[in-house]
Amino acid sequence: MAVPPDRDPVLLPAGFTCHVGNAGIKDGSDDVVILFADRPATAAGMFTRSRFAGPSVDISRAHVADGSARAMVVISKNANVANGPVGTADAHTVVERVAARLGVQPSDVLLASTGVIGRRYPMERLVAHLDALPVPITGRDAVAAARGIMTTDTVPKTARAVVGTGPATVVGIAKGVGMIEPDMATMIAVLLTDAAVDAAALDGALRQVVGGTFNALSIDTDTSTSDTVVALASGAAGPVATGELRAALEDVCRSLTRLIARDGEGATKLLEVVVDRARSESQAKRVAKAIVNSPLVKTAVHGADPNWGRVAMAVGKCSDDTDIDQERVVIRFGDRQVYPAQLGAEDLADVARSMKADEVRVHVSLGTGAAAFTVYGCDLSAGYVRINADYTT
Amino acid sequence: MAVPPDRDPVLLPAGFTCHVGNAGIKDGSDDVVILFADRPATAAGMFTRSRFAGPSVDISRAHVADGSARAMVVISKNANVANGPVGTADAHTVVERVAARLGVQPSDVLLASTGVIGRRYPMERLVAHLDALPVPITGRDAVAAARGIMTTDTVPKTARAVVGTGPATVVGIAKGVGMIEPDMATMIAVLLTDAAVDAAALDGALRQVVGGTFNALSIDTDTSTSDTVVALASGAAGPVATGELRAALEDVCRSLTRLIARDGEGATKLLEVVVDRARSESQAKRVAKAIVNSPLVKTAVHGADPNWGRVAMAVGKCSDDTDIDQERVVIRFGDRQVYPAQLGAEDLADVARSMKADEVRVHVSLGTGAAAFTVYGCDLSAGYVRINADYTT
Repeated sequence: MAVPPDRDPVLLPAGFTCHVGNAGIKDGSDDVVILFADRPATAAGMFTRSRFAGPSVDISRAHVADGSARAMVVISKNANVANGPVGTADAHTVVERVAARLGVQPSDVLLASTGVIGRRYPMERLVAHLDALPVPITGRDAVAAARGIMTTDTVPKTARAVVGTGPATVVGIAKGVGMIEPDMATMIAVLLTDAAVDAAALDGALRQVVGGTFNALSIDTDTSTSDTVVALASGAAGPVATGELRAALEDVCRSLTRLIARDGEGATKLLEVVVDRARSESQAKRVAKAIVNSPLVKTAVHGADPNWGRVAMAVGKCSDDTDIDQERVVIRFGDRQVYPAQLGAEDLADVARSMKADEVRVHVSLGTGAAAFTVYGCDLSAGYVRINADYTT
Repeated sequence: MAVPPDRDPVLLPAGFTCHVGNAGIKDGSDDVVILFADRPATAAGMFTRSRFAGPSVDISRAHVADGSARAMVVISKNANVANGPVGTADAHTVVERVAARLGVQPSDVLLASTGVIGRRYPMERLVAHLDALPVPITGRDAVAAARGIMTTDTVPKTARAVVGTGPATVVGIAKGVGMIEPDMATMIAVLLTDAAVDAAALDGALRQVVGGTFNALSIDTDTSTSDTVVALASGAAGPVATGELRAALEDVCRSLTRLIARDGEGATKLLEVVVDRARSESQAKRVAKAIVNSPLVKTAVHGADPNWGRVAMAVGKCSDDTDIDQERVVIRFGDRQVYPAQLGAEDLADVARSMKADEVRVHVSLGTGAAAFTVYGCDLSAGYVRINADYTT
């Protein structure tokens, strides 16, 4: 269940602590978060497939490969992407300084970084901050950690779920508001659990869960260079059933996915698109993505305009799906069927009223089979343009 | 060469006349255009691949199949799409009434229609208009015809080219500002020539030309249900070399493509993206489309912000192109290399100034081969959101 920001402190699961601080990456807000496991944690990760992936992604991918880690460093306000060999050297320096200060191996440190592309970290300030890390790390506040990894996010994003009937829990933090159509994982999400689980089971559960959550999310069709999701398990709460852990992970990931969609740049509404009665899950996902990514659908949702013709257009542009027959397609806004239908002006006014809510659901039944998929996005507002027409300069 | 609107009257090629009138489809502006060939014209057409294609597209596809036509009817302000069997019957009625009035076979009449989806034509008014068509049709003004097919276009779009050294010419009219990422052809474009050419040669030339022009255009990634491009050749100017006709068609189609891009909904700039040094034309097109369709690139162009990191991101998200290596990619804004580079604040201010022009060119060299492709689009402004957040209601 999603945790409302700024209420009920969310504590990290047993076995984890965090450091949250400011190294002056961009301004005086927190920009360095370190999640620390008091003994080797089981680790799994999924990363962007971008051909412009940065050194943080390369390093984390290599360091998580053995299924074990001690620390996850998240630097915000600077992605350290497309900086060439000097950017790679900077990333290694960060990992080495953190490892030295915490008394762990560099290969047990993971790194993620988001923010502006093509600009170096202010290394002097950053190294000074890392060399002066207060040890031992004692923080437990997940909301503070979530706030520390924000760039242009407007709210910190945390979620928590209990594994089965307890005592193990899963706590997740995430960030991301733009450049969001994750291809393997979202911008940055870290999932912590005190469940005891082996690396293969954790990795398998993560991969199963990410497909229907973070990878079902699109703010703006733009896949980040820095997408990273990492799961760490301390084992402090003892063994759990794998199915129950997967369910708790899925609960947390879905909550974080919805929080990210709702906080999309300039967004005023969460847009959920359900496609069912499809030939296959991949067909359902393809059509759902076409709808959730259509700027014409997104602006209609923004204007609470029941313009179902644009949904029909978005379905129609999946032109390689030649089994889609417009005479078998059904389109609904919420529970209200709008196509096929002969809605009068009053009916449409009704639908328009329902679209003024802060969540809008578009539901399309294709009539080509029995598979389904749900994706998450947001409306497109003039605010998105304002935010992005003038970001670096 | 593009013809500036509202200057130098553009006349239709020999053998063609047009009717432009108002049938009250939506308001008092012109909404019915009929292009008429005084004898059977050679005809070729390309149409949307949308699974929600309307009956106008179905009818035109069938009627153009024999390579000959006498009339092309364009109805604007209503797409007649997703209206079920009654919409199909309405479309046939339109074709039959026009054929009867003009004394030609229904199978020699083509039909295109754009505007709102899911609403019937006002058939009583429309049929009355068609039954009272002034015959013979005598209009010659291509700009009036281009204005008559507009929906939310802000300028009529015409272009003209001479075939070889003459006397044959090609005149094209087009419309479209939103729901524009043509999959086979653009929203609506009609190309008229007085060259004498057989149907196979005209069809071949059209297909060759559309790939690099209308199909290289994207305003908003949304493929219309109504995309139609039709070429009609009257033969009045006698035979021409096929290569010269293709060159003239390409000139006209490229001009219309640029006019459409520049008039994109809310657009303030034409965005041209050139990708070269690619492994194949299809790789170059895929990367170029990723860039021109990125809302983050489009908003940066709108803000004249030299944020080349977003171009790198868009290249990077073509993640199946594993031969793309960020260390071999070169990014330029106009002629100015921005990656790899260590540009100072003054250099970036220079680039920003150049981006205030009404045409911005992004040029990416992939370093994977020798192929190239150019695509056309526009910036993304708050105006796009305003236009589209409240269109039907």
